[in-house]
Amino acid sequence: MWLAALTTVRPWRSSQRVRCGILTVEIEHVDAASLEKLEQHGVDCQPKASTIRIIQDKYLQKVHFSRHGIPLPEFMQIDDLEGAKRAGDLFGYPLMVKSKRLAYDGRGNAVAKTAEELSSAVAALGGFERGLYVEKWAPFVKELAVIVARGRDNSVLCYPVVETIHKENICHIVKAPASIPWKIGKQATDIAHKAVCSLEGAGVFAVELFLTRDGQVLLNEVAPRPHNSGHHTIESCYTSQFEQHLRAVIGLPLGDPSMKTPAAIMYNILGEEEGEQGFRLANRLMGRALNIKGAAIHWYDKPEMRKQRKMGHITIVGSSLGTVEAQLNALLSEEGRDCQSAVQPRVGIIMGSDSDLPVMKDAARILDAFDVPYEVRIVSAHRTPDVMFRYASSAQERGIQVIIAGAGGAAHLPGMVASLTPLPVIGVPVRASVLDGLDSLLSIVQMPRGVPVATVAVNNATNAGLLAVRMLGVGDPDLLARMSQYQEDTKEDVLTKAEKLQREGWESYLNP
Amino acid sequence: MWLAALTTVRPWRSSQRVRCGILTVEIEHVDAASLEKLEQHGVDCQPKASTIRIIQDKYLQKVHFSRHGIPLPEFMQIDDLEGAKRAGDLFGYPLMVKSKRLAYDGRGNAVAKTAEELSSAVAALGGFERGLYVEKWAPFVKELAVIVARGRDNSVLCYPVVETIHKENICHIVKAPASIPWKIGKQATDIAHKAVCSLEGAGVFAVELFLTRDGQVLLNEVAPRPHNSGHHTIESCYTSQFEQHLRAVIGLPLGDPSMKTPAAIMYNILGEEEGEQGFRLANRLMGRALNIKGAAIHWYDKPEMRKQRKMGHITIVGSSLGTVEAQLNALLSEEGRDCQSAVQPRVGIIMGSDSDLPVMKDAARILDAFDVPYEVRIVSAHRTPDVMFRYASSAQERGIQVIIAGAGGAAHLPGMVASLTPLPVIGVPVRASVLDGLDSLLSIVQMPRGVPVATVAVNNATNAGLLAVRMLGVGDPDLLARMSQYQEDTKEDVLTKAEKLQREGWESYLNP
Repeated sequence: MWLAALTTVRPWRSSQRVRCGILTVEIEHVDAASLEKLEQHGVDCQPKASTIRIIQDKYLQKVHFSRHGIPLPEFMQIDDLEGAKRAGDLFGYPLMVKSKRLAYDGRGNAVAKTAEELSSAVAALGGFERGLYVEKWAPFVKELAVIVARGRDNSVLCYPVVETIHKENICHIVKAPASIPWKIGKQATDIAHKAVCSLEGAGVFAVELFLTRDGQVLLNEVAPRPHNSGHHTIESCYTSQFEQHLRAVIGLPLGDPSMKTPAAIMYNILGEEEGEQGFRLANRLMGRALNIKGAAIHWYDKPEMRKQRKMGHITIVGSSLGTVEAQLNALLSEEGRDCQSAVQPRVGIIMGSDSDLPVMKDAARILDAFDVPYEVRIVSAHRTPDVMFRYASSAQERGIQVIIAGAGGAAHLPGMVASLTPLPVIGVPVRASVLDGLDSLLSIVQMPRGVPVATVAVNNATNAGLLAVRMLGVGDPDLLARMSQYQEDTKEDVLTKAEKLQREGWESYLNP
Repeated sequence: MWLAALTTVRPWRSSQRVRCGILTVEIEHVDAASLEKLEQHGVDCQPKASTIRIIQDKYLQKVHFSRHGIPLPEFMQIDDLEGAKRAGDLFGYPLMVKSKRLAYDGRGNAVAKTAEELSSAVAALGGFERGLYVEKWAPFVKELAVIVARGRDNSVLCYPVVETIHKENICHIVKAPASIPWKIGKQATDIAHKAVCSLEGAGVFAVELFLTRDGQVLLNEVAPRPHNSGHHTIESCYTSQFEQHLRAVIGLPLGDPSMKTPAAIMYNILGEEEGEQGFRLANRLMGRALNIKGAAIHWYDKPEMRKQRKMGHITIVGSSLGTVEAQLNALLSEEGRDCQSAVQPRVGIIMGSDSDLPVMKDAARILDAFDVPYEVRIVSAHRTPDVMFRYASSAQERGIQVIIAGAGGAAHLPGMVASLTPLPVIGVPVRASVLDGLDSLLSIVQMPRGVPVATVAVNNATNAGLLAVRMLGVGDPDLLARMSQYQEDTKEDVLTKAEKLQREGWESYLNP
């Protein structure tokens, strides 16, 4: 890789001249005192030894971030069982008891559900002499993470916020981007940015956060290096976290951290069994992954298989979080029968009544012609308002990208659906028994400021289908090319008729 | 990499038991006779030695494909100058004279512009004894290429058609996907598919094609391996051509060859000067590339720099071909001043007259609020039809993804623009002096079957801006999250007013 060629890192020997260009770490559990000594000898450590020292002691880390005004769960050092009990009285139970040092992948954490469990929790962590502290239980609804890169010039860039899902305290699934309100995402990004700015040195940092039930974002901990929560960036972002770390420590401009695919999901391959059987299970999973669209397999080739050990990971990228989640479910389905990726509808065609179907079928015909997967449903705003509510508010997370809604008369369906989803909604005014469709048209098109409906001509579901294809073409040049071809073919049709008219004259054209 | 671990290829020695799992090639200029011998000894060659034998002799290749009914430029073996002249009389001039073997990156090709130049062309290629043939000049408008993968189970998958641009016969730029009519793309894919099916063995094949002035697609040549025209797949496709080749030869299921980013452009770093100065120029280019959004740098670390030698490549991925082309232009701009990626408008706001601006400005305000780059233009369907024609037909290639068009009265602009572009067009009926906007509304919404306009309410350019954001959100979850937040904020506004009304009563609400 070109970046790696820019710096030459040779082993450092105390008896020789320092030859190391830049020293960085891939794990924070290193000897911080040695790093400090190296810095005194002129070695360029990125991030700085001071950062490693702060981060490798989780209690020191909390004190540090707390001093810098970063919101985090309440915590307290404990030196003996009495201190632990006092903390329990103050913070309540369950109570997190944590080792200050060498805590990693759930090691160094123990939960005391009651005051009686405190001594066993302390014992499980090796006793007070290893250095313990307690943390108030954070009643989180989601765990979030932000990869933050800081360059040598102090430029800072944040990757999109992801959701991390843990299994027995070990990261298991990462969803990118997290499906959270935009404001929560901004809050998480701001906290992550601030936390990294309080530390010294360049590099990539992973900031892990809690989202609490009441919408608070609290810092959990920071890792001063590329991190499991950023592995998806290899396939999904313009710049992977690994390239970004090299850019940062070397002093190159930081790369764009945004996603080049709309969504990604990362699944850690954790050891399920010791030994051979564990390898067999992992191989079976990877074998299935080979058939999943957008899945990339990373196998770390570790010599030994242990339960819960991270042996590799699989990242699936795709056009929406709904899509990649469906792909992951297909991958994990035990039978493996559903393994061939299920076709995910991209367009929802809905209508107020089955009497609209003779009109609305034309939208389906167009989508068939363009090979766009879709679903057709009857959803009435007036007669099944609860179904309509559920359909509209879940459409996005199910992977639907465009909704076509047809209705007649006091045609409320398109507008109501548009008010319940951020997706683009196309309205088809269906001509009812009176007023020649003008009622339907005005009911659909004259939406108030704030909620748009893309309205097409009365009864013209063909154009609704074509409009959906054009919208999907925003992220799909092949669809746009097919649309251009469709326009070309339409032109040919008209020209053929024009030529026939010119050849035969208008009278024989009308009476063949 | 996991795939590589599946097969263990050890060096083959004739005196020992054959230990090689699978043998594949990274270049076709190998000793085909040895490969055949290896096959006889039971070595599993993929693709087969027969394929290498056919492909490494370009004349044999043409004979083979011609026999299999694949369209290609006319050709003829030549054994002496008289034969060459007969071919010239038959095919006309300019005439391509080509070496049968060891032709690569423009080596082995010579052009005779007239009969007089034939002998010097033959001499340039080392004379008749090396084996020559001539080819009728293909008056191509574009060169295309298709990477085709064939698995051991004969499953065949084709990557999207790309356009290749050569510089002194050496591949210089690759655009993915090629901007060609969809039917031409299908034709190119079908020919590539058929060509690969006529060869034996598994692996990735690159099929190079000519697109002629009259819309014919002709085969140029095939390479039985990953190819320069597929390097973009590393960043832009679900499965890179290199992983695909391994999947194919090992016998794993083929991966999805489609693009995960809408567009990519690859630029070969060719040696501009010999030696140090050449390295300096390449380094300057790569330094600029570090600042280009979506650019990935590949440096091959070849020890020597020679003129026109492929020293590395840069791939830029992005949301449309227009965008990545603009990024490449910024990269190549000599000054380097424009190097910081220019902001590319994604939405075009157009209107028939400046009198529409007071209405249409609301669309711009919304796009500002969502940080969507846009342009604002006056384009009248009736008074500047030629400008309208140019604007609409060039919008897509300039990187515009959605068009918002406002017009009043006999409002033809949105519909005319929609008929000239495959992009989604949003129509804003502007209320003119009579008929209260109903004339504008009906002129815009009542489009004929085939050409949709996404119509919003009269004078409601706010909703047009919001609809454009929802459309762009099809490929951009962050925009969709911001749209959800916007809807949430709107709700808060209404609830605040509702609460105030309830608190104050309707009378004091109206007369504060």
